[in-house]
Amino acid sequence: MNVLIVYAHPEPASFNGALLRTSIETLEQNGHTVAVSDLYANDFEPRITRADFQGKAVNLDVLNIPQEQNNAFETNTLSFDIQREQERLATADLVIFQFPLWWFSMPAILKGWIDRVFSRGFAYAAGRKYDTGLFHGKLAMICTTTGTSADTYAPDGIDGDILTVLWPIHNGIFRYTGFDVLPPFVAYMPGRLDFQERTYLLEKYKEKLLEIDSTPHLFFHPKNDYGPNERLKPGVLARSGVQRNT
Amino acid sequence: MNVLIVYAHPEPASFNGALLRTSIETLEQNGHTVAVSDLYANDFEPRITRADFQGKAVNLDVLNIPQEQNNAFETNTLSFDIQREQERLATADLVIFQFPLWWFSMPAILKGWIDRVFSRGFAYAAGRKYDTGLFHGKLAMICTTTGTSADTYAPDGIDGDILTVLWPIHNGIFRYTGFDVLPPFVAYMPGRLDFQERTYLLEKYKEKLLEIDSTPHLFFHPKNDYGPNERLKPGVLARSGVQRNT
Repeated sequence: MNVLIVYAHPEPASFNGALLRTSIETLEQNGHTVAVSDLYANDFEPRITRADFQGKAVNLDVLNIPQEQNNAFETNTLSFDIQREQERLATADLVIFQFPLWWFSMPAILKGWIDRVFSRGFAYAAGRKYDTGLFHGKLAMICTTTGTSADTYAPDGIDGDILTVLWPIHNGIFRYTGFDVLPPFVAYMPGRLDFQERTYLLEKYKEKLLEIDSTPHLFFHPKNDYGPNERLKPGVLARSGVQRNT
Repeated sequence: MNVLIVYAHPEPASFNGALLRTSIETLEQNGHTVAVSDLYANDFEPRITRADFQGKAVNLDVLNIPQEQNNAFETNTLSFDIQREQERLATADLVIFQFPLWWFSMPAILKGWIDRVFSRGFAYAAGRKYDTGLFHGKLAMICTTTGTSADTYAPDGIDGDILTVLWPIHNGIFRYTGFDVLPPFVAYMPGRLDFQERTYLLEKYKEKLLEIDSTPHLFFHPKNDYGPNERLKPGVLARSGVQRNT
């Protein structure tokens, strides 16, 4: 597989840095090709601005972002840093987001990578979402670290079920664009762990990476379960017996 | 009340711009004082970097963000743009986030405002979260716009319940730091609406702003409902009959 790891941490000596190095080593040893987008090392720009569309804009006097993104993608005039990331994404079979959970979500630099790189035309288009998404056939996975315990992210934990916390990313970014989604690898509170416990977590991550082929994907209702108004058809939940991920 | 509106859209002629102007006008006419942090106009930096801690850092060779944030806050050496926002927040009784929903979350520029301004020491500290959060006594609210219909964000909609999509912000940012949280104002698909329909939405927003005092806050389980492991005590759900917001 071609693997793209999008990495968002400013400190290589962090546990996120260790998880990154573990994943590169493990995947390469098993015959995969790994590319890394190290957002902090590249000082990646997180803000969508008019500068993204300087090549051949439709109308920068009144900025319509989807319109400009679509036009710039079709005319091949998106800014260079976006084009480079889109090329990496286009050839990836598996995309891993490696980031610390900051305020129950991604660091801004990674959110900005999504905002700018997942541009209209490239990552979504009319009629191309979810099952018919443009990244259909690709796999995606989150690897993240937290500041609090696994208990706090249990379904009845004070921070909320980790799958609820990650739902906007799993469903709204990955599944929306057509990815199949692997269960996340969550390293709870590495900042409070000693060397041995951290080493154990890195081993667990290595194991997970070696089991990707046999790991069931997260469940999302297929397009056919939704009616014309994009709400679940009556009886779908009862028939399938499968809960929504939310 | 002192109201702080944190506004994250690059185009003043957008519907977000119209919602912003409506809120300023409505709130000021009703005797409130309004401050606006216009993140795009200020070219606000979304990335936490070592530059945030140049004043009196503990150890920038190995960056430990919570440690540096805490130290810089206590020694009053956070970078100027962060200090200015923290002063605005400190005096605010109500904070409104005004943003377009991009990829089921905030634009990166607003996420970065959280990452950098909600620094350790200022926005959270040991033992100071949720009911005992540092912003206890303040109110917060989201005003956002979507690209798809209200149906898609219904509890059985394909994009997921809007309250699930916004849960990481409501619970993880607002409630975590002690805010009481007002129900969000969501303008669905303004890009597809005509002038009359948009005007109607602005009127609805105006009404909502005038009813803040009598609007019930979103429900979150109080600290006392959780046991020492920060998971709900057995029987709490059954006794209260109240579902979690997730």
